[in-house]
Amino acid sequence: MAVCGPSVCTPEEAAAARSVGELLAAAGAVVLCGGYGGVMEAAAEGAARAGGLVIGVLSGADRTGANRELSAAIVTGMGQARNHVLVASADAVIAVGGSWGTLSEVAMAVRSGSTPVIGLGGWRVLDAGGTELPGPRQASSPEEAVGWALES
Amino acid sequence: MAVCGPSVCTPEEAAAARSVGELLAAAGAVVLCGGYGGVMEAAAEGAARAGGLVIGVLSGADRTGANRELSAAIVTGMGQARNHVLVASADAVIAVGGSWGTLSEVAMAVRSGSTPVIGLGGWRVLDAGGTELPGPRQASSPEEAVGWALES
Amino acid sequence: MAVCGPSVCTPEEAAAARSVGELLAAAGAVVLCGGYGGVMEAAAEGAARAGGLVIGVLSGADRTGANRELSAAIVTGMGQARNHVLVASADAVIAVGGSWGTLSEVAMAVRSGSTPVIGLGGWRVLDAGGTELPGPRQASSPEEAVGWALES
Amino acid sequence: MAVCGPSVCTPEEAAAARSVGELLAAAGAVVLCGGYGGVMEAAAEGAARAGGLVIGVLSGADRTGANRELSAAIVTGMGQARNHVLVASADAVIAVGGSWGTLSEVAMAVRSGSTPVIGLGGWRVLDAGGTELPGPRQASSPEEAVGWALES
Repeated sequence: MAVCGPSVCTPEEAAAARSVGELLAAAGAVVLCGGYGGVMEAAAEGAARAGGLVIGVLSGADRTGANRELSAAIVTGMGQARNHVLVASADAVIAVGGSWGTLSEVAMAVRSGSTPVIGLGGWRVLDAGGTELPGPRQASSPEEAVGWALES
Repeated sequence: MAVCGPSVCTPEEAAAARSVGELLAAAGAVVLCGGYGGVMEAAAEGAARAGGLVIGVLSGADRTGANRELSAAIVTGMGQARNHVLVASADAVIAVGGSWGTLSEVAMAVRSGSTPVIGLGGWRVLDAGGTELPGPRQASSPEEAVGWALES
Repeated sequence: MAVCGPSVCTPEEAAAARSVGELLAAAGAVVLCGGYGGVMEAAAEGAARAGGLVIGVLSGADRTGANRELSAAIVTGMGQARNHVLVASADAVIAVGGSWGTLSEVAMAVRSGSTPVIGLGGWRVLDAGGTELPGPRQASSPEEAVGWALES
Repeated sequence: MAVCGPSVCTPEEAAAARSVGELLAAAGAVVLCGGYGGVMEAAAEGAARAGGLVIGVLSGADRTGANRELSAAIVTGMGQARNHVLVASADAVIAVGGSWGTLSEVAMAVRSGSTPVIGLGGWRVLDAGGTELPGPRQASSPEEAVGWALES
């Protein structure tokens, strides 16, 4: 399960990401994230707190900037092409908060057609006419988000 | 210059993409696109009509499905990680119409911080509070979009 | 630490890879491999037997063909570009046996200039004049290979 | 057609690469190369001299270091994962001279099973027992190498 979100986030987003990581790990899921700060770090902290396995899929060419909660790091050295790797590796994607990098991950996951995408306080996407597009399923709590991810 | 957009599009979007490709090529720019149908094919047609160079950056592992207007194809064999390659290769990105794949390209280009992104009839992105986010600059015509791309 | 090698291998190569995986895991190292059969599977078996963490970095777009010993799989969906990800993620690379895919990993690791590469019964590379090139350091046993990898 | 080779090369290798690029372009083939110096630059010069199309597939995240002969540059920003893109895009690969990066490209092309690989003064690969492995077909001149590539 991948937890995506911005590298700079609010305390509320960090708390939500921490809960998501913890709940996923407590349920036995491997937690994947982008490996850096903000939502990524909070999700990793949560997973580590539950004794789970958490893997950071880094965009950089070495481990610089990786958070300290990771069980292991994958160093892609591929910039944002790593967003694809993160999404392709996940049975479901939970996005906490929003950023352009996060949106690219959400968009690729929805595009794949096979990966459930769940949003928690994230961005919304409208078509040119102003109609909201059916993309990520919006959860109202970490518990709901994780529940949907696990049943997928 | 990259022209992005959905592989299935309206006649209006195709016409706009054709104009964008033609205007870019007429100005001497190399046109990059995703290499398949819809907006990608229309942009390639426009560029070819103007005698320009148009390169398709394909997601597949061979040339299956590539349109016939390409001067050359780059076969990434990397699925949607090719979206990153397309965006990273472009001095500016013009998105015509919307799709989740297109949105991932727009998002990665905005995220890069260095590539101007111009939308033409594309999707819009709101934050969780419903405020539209400053991302792609919305053009009202192919001429305006190409003008902005070339001055960037 | 990455263990590389062919997906079809001899019993001797499998035994060597199993020992390498086991020794690495027993020393507390995370074991990375390509995630499929042959040497990759044997290395994963060894790591699992020692209770270690073993991650398969898959070339495919889903988990088809992944071996059953993996703690987690990274699905790159990028074909052989995954060889780069595997190598870039490793503090050292141990190649057991030879194949063209394995050779590409060895070559990228040597090319990086920063990753120690250790060969165990693998291929050799000569320049055009027939002189053997200094590339991977050739070990004579799994113990020696792992010892060199851990001291790097 | 891809021309691969080291970024630092001998005058003889540069002359051979220039001829290969020129002969390919004269035959109407699009020439692909890694986009930087040495053999890559010489192949691009040859192709440009013949009025052909030459595309550099760069490993970096921008055009820094690209040679000036390219018709267009693809910026992968993916480090050596670009070697895969270069090889996957080619109907045939001609390797002039040897380096570890070049060897990774040759190895991935042979591994693909579908791309003819032709060597010109390049490295040789032996198995653990010292037997030369059937990989790239060794040409004795640029004319022979290009002839084999075009008939493939």
